[in-house]
Amino acid sequence: MLPNEAGISRRALLSMIGTAAGSAVMYGAMSKMGLAQESTWTGRLDLQGDPKGASVLILGAGLAGMTAAFELRNAGYTVKVLEYRKKAGGRCWTLRSGDTYTELGGFTQQVDFAEGNYINPGPWRIPSDHFAVLDYCKRFGVELEPFQQVNYNAYVHDTNAFDGKPQRFKEIDADFRGGVSELLAKVADQGMLDQMVTEEDAEILVSALKGWGVLDDDLEYVTGEASSSHRGWKVPEGGGTTGKPVPSEITPLSVILQSGLWSKISGGHHLHMQTTMFQPKGGMDMVARGFEGEVGDLITYGAKVTRIENTETGVRATWIPSEGEGEETVEEADYCICTIPFSVLGQIETNFSSRMTGIIQNMPYYSATKVGLEFKRRFWEEDEHIYGGISYTNLPISQISYPSTGYFSDGPGVLLGAYVWGAYSYQFNALPGEQRVEKALEYGAQIHPQYHDEFKTGVGVGWHRVPWSLGCFGQWKDRDADYMDACQMDGRTLMAGEHISYLPAWMEGAILSSIDAVKRLHETVTAT
Amino acid sequence: MLPNEAGISRRALLSMIGTAAGSAVMYGAMSKMGLAQESTWTGRLDLQGDPKGASVLILGAGLAGMTAAFELRNAGYTVKVLEYRKKAGGRCWTLRSGDTYTELGGFTQQVDFAEGNYINPGPWRIPSDHFAVLDYCKRFGVELEPFQQVNYNAYVHDTNAFDGKPQRFKEIDADFRGGVSELLAKVADQGMLDQMVTEEDAEILVSALKGWGVLDDDLEYVTGEASSSHRGWKVPEGGGTTGKPVPSEITPLSVILQSGLWSKISGGHHLHMQTTMFQPKGGMDMVARGFEGEVGDLITYGAKVTRIENTETGVRATWIPSEGEGEETVEEADYCICTIPFSVLGQIETNFSSRMTGIIQNMPYYSATKVGLEFKRRFWEEDEHIYGGISYTNLPISQISYPSTGYFSDGPGVLLGAYVWGAYSYQFNALPGEQRVEKALEYGAQIHPQYHDEFKTGVGVGWHRVPWSLGCFGQWKDRDADYMDACQMDGRTLMAGEHISYLPAWMEGAILSSIDAVKRLHETVTAT
Repeated sequence: MLPNEAGISRRALLSMIGTAAGSAVMYGAMSKMGLAQESTWTGRLDLQGDPKGASVLILGAGLAGMTAAFELRNAGYTVKVLEYRKKAGGRCWTLRSGDTYTELGGFTQQVDFAEGNYINPGPWRIPSDHFAVLDYCKRFGVELEPFQQVNYNAYVHDTNAFDGKPQRFKEIDADFRGGVSELLAKVADQGMLDQMVTEEDAEILVSALKGWGVLDDDLEYVTGEASSSHRGWKVPEGGGTTGKPVPSEITPLSVILQSGLWSKISGGHHLHMQTTMFQPKGGMDMVARGFEGEVGDLITYGAKVTRIENTETGVRATWIPSEGEGEETVEEADYCICTIPFSVLGQIETNFSSRMTGIIQNMPYYSATKVGLEFKRRFWEEDEHIYGGISYTNLPISQISYPSTGYFSDGPGVLLGAYVWGAYSYQFNALPGEQRVEKALEYGAQIHPQYHDEFKTGVGVGWHRVPWSLGCFGQWKDRDADYMDACQMDGRTLMAGEHISYLPAWMEGAILSSIDAVKRLHETVTAT
Repeated sequence: MLPNEAGISRRALLSMIGTAAGSAVMYGAMSKMGLAQESTWTGRLDLQGDPKGASVLILGAGLAGMTAAFELRNAGYTVKVLEYRKKAGGRCWTLRSGDTYTELGGFTQQVDFAEGNYINPGPWRIPSDHFAVLDYCKRFGVELEPFQQVNYNAYVHDTNAFDGKPQRFKEIDADFRGGVSELLAKVADQGMLDQMVTEEDAEILVSALKGWGVLDDDLEYVTGEASSSHRGWKVPEGGGTTGKPVPSEITPLSVILQSGLWSKISGGHHLHMQTTMFQPKGGMDMVARGFEGEVGDLITYGAKVTRIENTETGVRATWIPSEGEGEETVEEADYCICTIPFSVLGQIETNFSSRMTGIIQNMPYYSATKVGLEFKRRFWEEDEHIYGGISYTNLPISQISYPSTGYFSDGPGVLLGAYVWGAYSYQFNALPGEQRVEKALEYGAQIHPQYHDEFKTGVGVGWHRVPWSLGCFGQWKDRDADYMDACQMDGRTLMAGEHISYLPAWMEGAILSSIDAVKRLHETVTAT
């Protein structure tokens, strides 16, 4: 910690205040000292104060690096960015027709998708509470379109339930809510909640559950018009002489419970998965291109950093060309914002403090594999009326996500055919790309038999083999102990990226961590 | 009923079979006679058989009328359509900049929206299980985009709850589910459900509710990370030193129950409101234009039907120009498909059977008012991060729907500022258009105070004053008694439209009723 003017560390001072006067006073004191909790995103940055000619070297042209480059140049800094790849974006990445991807180990995959089709191996959706991403997209002219997370007509699937037959989300969702509502409404009606709710509340609760769970007057969730209006009809409502619908049979709660499929209907309740969500038109890397359009002139591409040194008065980084032969180049600057993932940074020579080095070495990166599958036609729409959204399964592929764009079009379409996590992911990653695709096809065909006839081409990305990240996202083993120290300026270097945030794996986390680093760097510069 | 070959009515025959042999045999018999229940939409029509030069006069160029025109011409019929308005679509209608709308009573409203902005006074969304609408859109090149029904960041509002302050949907939704889950998990855990579920199921139920309701290990729904990850944080997750989020306080179940806001969170569970939903790009009447592009040459516009007569060998309709002066014109055809709403048809002279006339006269039309409000900027997005979806309120406006298109754009935006039903609607309809707009502003400002400063222009449509429908949609007083008789051919005339369907008010109902009428007309023609 930096000492304050009186030579007492902030933490020590706060501790004294806290002990003496209680937390309200302490909060007030923290506020004045700029440590109090406020949102990282407080609107567009408007950095006041003279940067005094300071220069900043930014390592990595992912979203964190480019955010820093954009904001620091705007504030008057001299900025340079080193990027390992030949393009910007880092994990904000899209694979399209004509792309070639060579992973660690040398496997190369050619992407043969039809023109306009793509897969996002990294981030693929933007929650509507990710204000920073949304705002930069607006500023940089990145066009967004809705991303469908939940589709009630998609499937939930478990090989051990319903004889392995996929069930429609809407059926399991309605039947679970109905069954649960029936049980609670009945115990409330029988006065069994007397210890827990007032009589009046119990009465309202029964009414509420009747509506929410579509119960009948006997407080039962039964086969009929009400349940079919939620879970779907056997024969749907129509017109004329054939218009009268036929209800579908509800599935009893016991069967739903035993199936385990209730575990697959809650995703859309999570803050980051709630409607409305977005994606850029044309692929997630349109976000990266938006940033690149602003700061591309600051980026040196194809630069593999080999050494980072804090010096007495600044920072020095050495790099070589990331491909082919080439001389070492040395860059010097007053400050450094380092957005290189710790998984990669741990393999680079540095003179960071032993505390920082320990944190870097101690951070595992999560493993994930994504497989994009292109099919000759959008059979999920044409045959099964699934427009966007996600089917969930207990198979290693974990989910199948249907494209949220190009609805109703006739040509080939690309599914996210596998989003493999953890242990399964290591198995997938061990395989060459084409075998990852085969695996995804083999599993996915249990949900969509059309896979066999309609498959066209695919690509599989295992994140532990992605040379510029060596993993999907950073995991804190002991966040409480280490996180704040990782945020501190180490010599003249500040870390930024999704790993330096409470939104790991999200683009918003990368950008917000960068904004926080930029603010603190600027405070340091203007305060000296 | 038409007699069958043996001279016994179908119904009498079926009744005999039913009595003698039980319902399974009866169902088989019905199937063979073409009366068994099957979905109205069985894929694209492919009418085989010679129409023998038959002609069909179609009354009304709404979606039902245009569907019939398209399918009958395809099958070889001579088709003519009479339409009251100067354009096609009926209630599938969009108001845009430059439009003028004169309602019954002579009030005229000019629509001053900015270029590209619009309001759909009638249908405004397409569920993804409305296969017929979706398929005709695809055939006719009508481009669709997602319609957001549910937005977790929109509001639920009741003037008598939370001091009249709107609450975010996600907060009420999470807290209600959490509170309900806590109660049921506890009673299950305490063995109080022994009469209703097995011990094993009770255990699974507790697990399921823990996940679904984000309960802690004591089965309580509490303020903390889990609940805030669903209802939203006090200070959201961020990056760097300011990244640690601060949980928001949950609202106790008792408060949720007393607020009544639980009644406003279930809409999206209904089959016709489930994700994914669609709307045409540019306004709902793009659907009408799609049809019109196919059958516009068959339509006589501006024709007000004054008399419909079944004759010995066909049908005769008399019309006059709907505007200005003009002679009576008489049209004759072998058959008629009449899609004129019963609310209007009841005022036209006909020689329909007394049974049909009684049904027509006996059908009330639902009252609804919609108000479109244009504001200088999209403050709901810019200030409140509400992208599409609907806020619900107990105020007469009932809801505010945010546009599902043009997200993040800078110009003026149009809200559906009121969707007024029933008794409130009559009050709204009694007012001139500009006062409906004022009312919508006055109420809506209780939810969005920005209304005061940002209002630009508006238009209000009361459906009971729309000259070509005199109401929103047909309501069956006794569907069981009357519906099938209304479907029967009366002389040479068949009725079609949303009122002749089990999907009242929906475009799908109009189209499906028309498809059923077309099939039956064709059966009759080819059978003779």
